[in-house]
Amino acid sequence: MANKASSRLEWRINVPGGTSKVLEPESGAVGKIWVGLKGCMGIIVWKVWRVLENAWHIGVADPRKVIHCIKVGLALSIVSLFYYMRPLYDDFGGNAMWAVMTVVVVFEYTVGATFYKCINRVIATFLAGALGVGIHLVAEQSGDQLKPIILGISVFLFASAATFSRFIPSVKARFDYGAMIFILTFSLVSVSGYRVVELFELAHMRLSTIAIGTSLCILVTMLFCPVWAGCELHHLIHQNMEKLADSLDGCVTEYFKENGSEEDLKKKMQGYKCVLNSKAAEESMANFARWEPTHGRFNFRHPWKQYLKIGASLRNCAYCIETLNSCISSEIQAPPCLRKHFSNKCMKASSYSINVLKELAITIMKMKKSSNIDIKVAEMNFAVEELVDALKSLPTTHFIATTTGEESTKAKAEGVEGSEHPSPIIKVLPLVKVVSLMLEIATRIGGVVNAVKELARLAEFKAAKDGKPKQNQPTDKLVSDH
Amino acid sequence: MANKASSRLEWRINVPGGTSKVLEPESGAVGKIWVGLKGCMGIIVWKVWRVLENAWHIGVADPRKVIHCIKVGLALSIVSLFYYMRPLYDDFGGNAMWAVMTVVVVFEYTVGATFYKCINRVIATFLAGALGVGIHLVAEQSGDQLKPIILGISVFLFASAATFSRFIPSVKARFDYGAMIFILTFSLVSVSGYRVVELFELAHMRLSTIAIGTSLCILVTMLFCPVWAGCELHHLIHQNMEKLADSLDGCVTEYFKENGSEEDLKKKMQGYKCVLNSKAAEESMANFARWEPTHGRFNFRHPWKQYLKIGASLRNCAYCIETLNSCISSEIQAPPCLRKHFSNKCMKASSYSINVLKELAITIMKMKKSSNIDIKVAEMNFAVEELVDALKSLPTTHFIATTTGEESTKAKAEGVEGSEHPSPIIKVLPLVKVVSLMLEIATRIGGVVNAVKELARLAEFKAAKDGKPKQNQPTDKLVSDH
Repeated sequence: MANKASSRLEWRINVPGGTSKVLEPESGAVGKIWVGLKGCMGIIVWKVWRVLENAWHIGVADPRKVIHCIKVGLALSIVSLFYYMRPLYDDFGGNAMWAVMTVVVVFEYTVGATFYKCINRVIATFLAGALGVGIHLVAEQSGDQLKPIILGISVFLFASAATFSRFIPSVKARFDYGAMIFILTFSLVSVSGYRVVELFELAHMRLSTIAIGTSLCILVTMLFCPVWAGCELHHLIHQNMEKLADSLDGCVTEYFKENGSEEDLKKKMQGYKCVLNSKAAEESMANFARWEPTHGRFNFRHPWKQYLKIGASLRNCAYCIETLNSCISSEIQAPPCLRKHFSNKCMKASSYSINVLKELAITIMKMKKSSNIDIKVAEMNFAVEELVDALKSLPTTHFIATTTGEESTKAKAEGVEGSEHPSPIIKVLPLVKVVSLMLEIATRIGGVVNAVKELARLAEFKAAKDGKPKQNQPTDKLVSDH
Repeated sequence: MANKASSRLEWRINVPGGTSKVLEPESGAVGKIWVGLKGCMGIIVWKVWRVLENAWHIGVADPRKVIHCIKVGLALSIVSLFYYMRPLYDDFGGNAMWAVMTVVVVFEYTVGATFYKCINRVIATFLAGALGVGIHLVAEQSGDQLKPIILGISVFLFASAATFSRFIPSVKARFDYGAMIFILTFSLVSVSGYRVVELFELAHMRLSTIAIGTSLCILVTMLFCPVWAGCELHHLIHQNMEKLADSLDGCVTEYFKENGSEEDLKKKMQGYKCVLNSKAAEESMANFARWEPTHGRFNFRHPWKQYLKIGASLRNCAYCIETLNSCISSEIQAPPCLRKHFSNKCMKASSYSINVLKELAITIMKMKKSSNIDIKVAEMNFAVEELVDALKSLPTTHFIATTTGEESTKAKAEGVEGSEHPSPIIKVLPLVKVVSLMLEIATRIGGVVNAVKELARLAEFKAAKDGKPKQNQPTDKLVSDH
């Protein structure tokens, strides 16, 4: 029996980096529990190890996150000093707690988010405090009987109204945190006012401690390695553009190449997925960016909303690339001769499209109007036209011209020239799909070009040094015509 | 001069629902200021009016949001009673503030979110409090000189570590709020411990007031019209499925119909955009749903993660429909005769695909295994096969058979049968694109079918009453084969 159990119970724990261990069970119930406990411990140790490993990778991938943590620790340690210094403590008393609390809840990763919370917190506290004191004065005039009723009703009404305001999108985007702080402060003031006579002093204390906390946060977040939401958004859009170009390159190369696919090509192809999933990140960054003061190359009134439009047009391209990607894995493939025929044209069109995307990425990165974007767009359109021409002349001249000997006979047998055999449409379907998606992608890249031009206009990008930007060329129209 | 100014300054304010007013300026600087002020006031009134109108629409569209606001007001009013009742106040003193604060920050729209915050807050407060008291005891043993240093360093270390943990995705998804409360409580305890001797009593007070606040929140959120995150997610997925079906229907109808498009058809076609944009909402709801206790038809361990997979497969379809949608607005269109030829086949394939989507939507809504999903999938596959066959025989038999008289001559002149004229490929390109997208959409619907079947297995859906579900039919394979 014990033998049977021992053969059944065999715990194998794989500790990453360690060796695989086989835990031999001891006989009896105690032994089983011991083995079970050891197993549980092993799993817990393994999970903690996994989390730590994960944390290490996150820290290595973006050291600014580690710096952020040090900044939070620093800000908290500084604000704790207020407690330890007796003269300051005697001034503020228990209210110094609010400074600590402010630092904890207000300190965010980006400068913009910290500003958003600080400004919301200060204004909401001030407004709610003033309103609370006002209602308290009114309630005091009404006598002891009515006072709690008036206060209760006012808390109910204002809390409900402020809560509802958080559902309105425009309020939610800018003042969500402020609405919460408003409810909090208003409730606390009107409730505690029932007891505390020195309401004005309390309000003054709270406001000054919050001011200390917020100004400390703003100082620490701006002075030590600041992370600007605007810069992050700027880089995200720039990176997404490059990823999109790489994906397009990867997909077309993968489709037309003759050997098996490589690992890094496949990885490159997946870049468009980041573009598909970055909507939420872009929106929150754009929301925070507009709270940020002038920094580096960005003004206070930098057109952050236009970045969202560029992001949307990039996602528009990414949808097409997603469909293109699925064509690659399709099982029915066009005859090799046909693929060869289109290979050059398609590669050319895609490489010119990629050139446009990369040029746009450089425009955004350098924040300078590109001197040759219009030329590149014209090149792309020309390559697209060639592709369309190739499609037009497909079953007649070109195809026969390029196919020779065996291939030509095979093609003829397959009904390329309209014989009684199964039509070429189904044979060329995946290829036609790829080509038509290439055309569509070029059209959508036109949308990205327009969005970036609009950004350049709104943000008043300067012209690049190597030449003047040529605007209003007919090439713009060509792009949107397709 | 005054005349000139009056002709320049003419403020026209459009109040929605009101009449358009022309404000006549008065002469002189005072007049200008007055006019300016009136203009500003007008703009402010108009903006406030817009916000109110917006709020009204939000309230009418989803009355549960209004109920949520009333619930917040109610919870706050109840917790305020603790202040007004003298015996309770004498017990808790100033600490009753924590109960109010807890209600304000913890009360969320869905039950799941409220549970998430409550549980995080209670556990984090307990852990941080215990740790804070422990470190405080250690510091006390080390003498007055070392004490602030030990406390300061511990605040720095624990705050940094907890802040970093918020960057780890698995921690962020479940314990983000808890990490913040941990930092808050730990800082407050270790800092205030420097002054307050009765640390244990303080900790006890804080814990009990937080317990009062959280239990009140949980009671109010669960007893009065609860909004379950799980139900919301369930409905969102169901709705998105229906929207996708409608979009597909709208796109195909719009493409093949002969008259101009109607307004409501266009609106219907845009449904896929909701599917594209609902990733963030789905993820947050799934995060909150797993904190919810058993409710209605959902267990505590309902497979919410599977809903995310269904959502992803729906988005997969939506990408294709997005591309399909762009085909409709394409300027180059296939010859009418060809479109007519494919119209029936395509409409059939799309209507069967829509049937499958609608059946899946019903499966999800009723939470019962569908008895005829396999039949519907088989029908869809059959229609898709027919479409492929139609494509195969396009330039030879079918096309000639369906084109008559003038159309046939026209088609011949256009080189459909491989004459020297421009090839048919470019002419049929948009049509071929639509057809190939239809095929791709059918494949991706197969992915949705599999995801829903997996959900039915994991959540142990019961069989529908009108028959037994037929599993493992060859139809499944057909879907994934395309």
